[in-house]
Amino acid sequence: MITPPISTRASTLFLSPQDVATIIRRTGLAATLRGMTDYLQQDFLRWSDFDKSARLAAHSPDGVIELMPIADAQTYTFKYVNGHPKNTARGLPTVMAFGVLADVASGFPLLVSELTLTTALRTAATSALAARTLARPDSRVMALIGNGAQSEFQALAFHHLAGITEIRLFDVDPLASTKLMRNLQSNPDAAGLHLTLCNSTREAVRGADIVTTVTADKTNATILTADMLQPGIHINAVGGDCPGKTELHADVLRAAKVFVEYEPQTRIEGDLQQMDASFAVTELWRVLDGQTTGRETAEQITLFDSVGFALEDFSALRYVHDRAQALVLGSAVALIPALDDPKDLYQLIKPALAVPRGVVAASAVPATHALLEAVA
Amino acid sequence: MITPPISTRASTLFLSPQDVATIIRRTGLAATLRGMTDYLQQDFLRWSDFDKSARLAAHSPDGVIELMPIADAQTYTFKYVNGHPKNTARGLPTVMAFGVLADVASGFPLLVSELTLTTALRTAATSALAARTLARPDSRVMALIGNGAQSEFQALAFHHLAGITEIRLFDVDPLASTKLMRNLQSNPDAAGLHLTLCNSTREAVRGADIVTTVTADKTNATILTADMLQPGIHINAVGGDCPGKTELHADVLRAAKVFVEYEPQTRIEGDLQQMDASFAVTELWRVLDGQTTGRETAEQITLFDSVGFALEDFSALRYVHDRAQALVLGSAVALIPALDDPKDLYQLIKPALAVPRGVVAASAVPATHALLEAVA
Repeated sequence: MITPPISTRASTLFLSPQDVATIIRRTGLAATLRGMTDYLQQDFLRWSDFDKSARLAAHSPDGVIELMPIADAQTYTFKYVNGHPKNTARGLPTVMAFGVLADVASGFPLLVSELTLTTALRTAATSALAARTLARPDSRVMALIGNGAQSEFQALAFHHLAGITEIRLFDVDPLASTKLMRNLQSNPDAAGLHLTLCNSTREAVRGADIVTTVTADKTNATILTADMLQPGIHINAVGGDCPGKTELHADVLRAAKVFVEYEPQTRIEGDLQQMDASFAVTELWRVLDGQTTGRETAEQITLFDSVGFALEDFSALRYVHDRAQALVLGSAVALIPALDDPKDLYQLIKPALAVPRGVVAASAVPATHALLEAVA
Repeated sequence: MITPPISTRASTLFLSPQDVATIIRRTGLAATLRGMTDYLQQDFLRWSDFDKSARLAAHSPDGVIELMPIADAQTYTFKYVNGHPKNTARGLPTVMAFGVLADVASGFPLLVSELTLTTALRTAATSALAARTLARPDSRVMALIGNGAQSEFQALAFHHLAGITEIRLFDVDPLASTKLMRNLQSNPDAAGLHLTLCNSTREAVRGADIVTTVTADKTNATILTADMLQPGIHINAVGGDCPGKTELHADVLRAAKVFVEYEPQTRIEGDLQQMDASFAVTELWRVLDGQTTGRETAEQITLFDSVGFALEDFSALRYVHDRAQALVLGSAVALIPALDDPKDLYQLIKPALAVPRGVVAASAVPATHALLEAVA
């Protein structure tokens, strides 16, 4: 775990999207995904150590803004993340995120990091971790429904971590699929991965061992219906992650053994929101630590109803923090004032010269400026 | 209100403690406090426009870390803030904070700002706004109990906004009082403000029109008892702001008409936590907008049980954002990736060259680096 170096001149590390991209480039994408999956597994296995809560969501007509805090005895993290499907029309990503890792003992924020890119990695790593645990071990073919911003990460995580060698693509937007094909073809990260473009979800799912749904519409959509599913398939349902935003017909859930990250949150946000409270689900961590069985037979349909839980961002923030320190990346950001006397916050704005009352302090401005620079 | 300039190359403004200090220096402290109070009053008068919730707190043995989100139809803000009384022994402030202002329509974070300094200002401005509304109009003398990091701001806000000309100081730590005296004596911001150092809370409160308690211990303390109070006094209770952290004897609440920011939060966190649910309180905004009476007689004791509400940080973030834009201060921070195609997040980490499979991409590393720089 992290031993934070708190001092009287503590500083906060900042990681931009470019810094995280540099971590990935220097580490290698496959090794990054493996490393993040190791951190995820470590943290899922410490489930009871965490102070957990469902995320705090602010809904508006066009989207949602969420805060996702979590803490163990040493480390506190939170993520800020939005979901605005119409953003792409104005040149912005649908999902944007950043996060903070802080020292529980002092409350000092040790890291502020981009999480837009990192969230795509951690979501893909979590999906692959769940599939490695729940899918048939001989799974080789995955249908990938929804070819937007997260799709390359899902494809590469399943290729490198879950043995997938063929991906069958479909998106209602043909340009999204073209972009995914372009990004993965002739790409060393995707060497050995065969890509097949399909004309419908039904066609993509036919013959697949795993189906990943990662669509963005904020509606109760029916991307998958029960009649599309062969026995033994594993469903990795990523896009139904918000009240009013689902991807699966309720019969798909009824046909499957359903696994979730954190039950109280998934009941509100996942495809599970369609089912009543008596519908049984299993938390993934219980399978990971051997408390309970995952898949029971080769014919059983398994479903990971993934909504994204704060614990995964905790792991991801730990990972990028550790990698950035190892690679000496990122920059210091002056988020918290460094004070000579921590009880003397006013020193930050005190006029530099003790000017006798009644004397006009015309010369004080440059001196004050110099003091502020010195304090900085 | 804010009209956020969203574009395909949207950027986030960053304000450090030094940037906020520069805003205060260029604006003047009295004008800053007045400006912030105007923003607070505007927002309190739009009470029903806000999506409000009690803050989300993570408690640990030595302190608390909180997230305080709030939104109206246009703007979302949140504050991260800790409270760790033992921090000063290791050279860190007890309270450290930062916050974000985002565009509700897109979820884009427009501003990341320090809020350690800003919180002290907004708390003092809120205290003065409440006192201006609730204290006797002829109030001139204030007792200031607790002379730590927030005390100068309280003193100056009451001086500039609420007509206080004499302050009677007390702190259990004499060094804290010395620091407060030193910071305010011979200071143009405190011109016309008379300071009296006292040996006890009882001595400080004697003859005061207003008493402000702003102590830091995370305990159920009894700073004020009912027998210390003259008729007509206004109590500005700032330091009892967390479960298990109170400053007033329950009889003080019983003796007073009690005003709060947001009742559901104050019932949990304020000195009000000592009283049962039937104990009546009045939300300050109702007095500000004339729905209800504040002080009823010159002899009545009024009490503002202040815990700090997310709406106040919303106002403060709006204020520093507007002032920074007017003064062209702050810097851009790369928190969210700028993407040529917002559905193509993978472009951030895609190898630069389309390398045919099987060909070792030895020369790709510098080219990739160049691409990442160009994307930045």
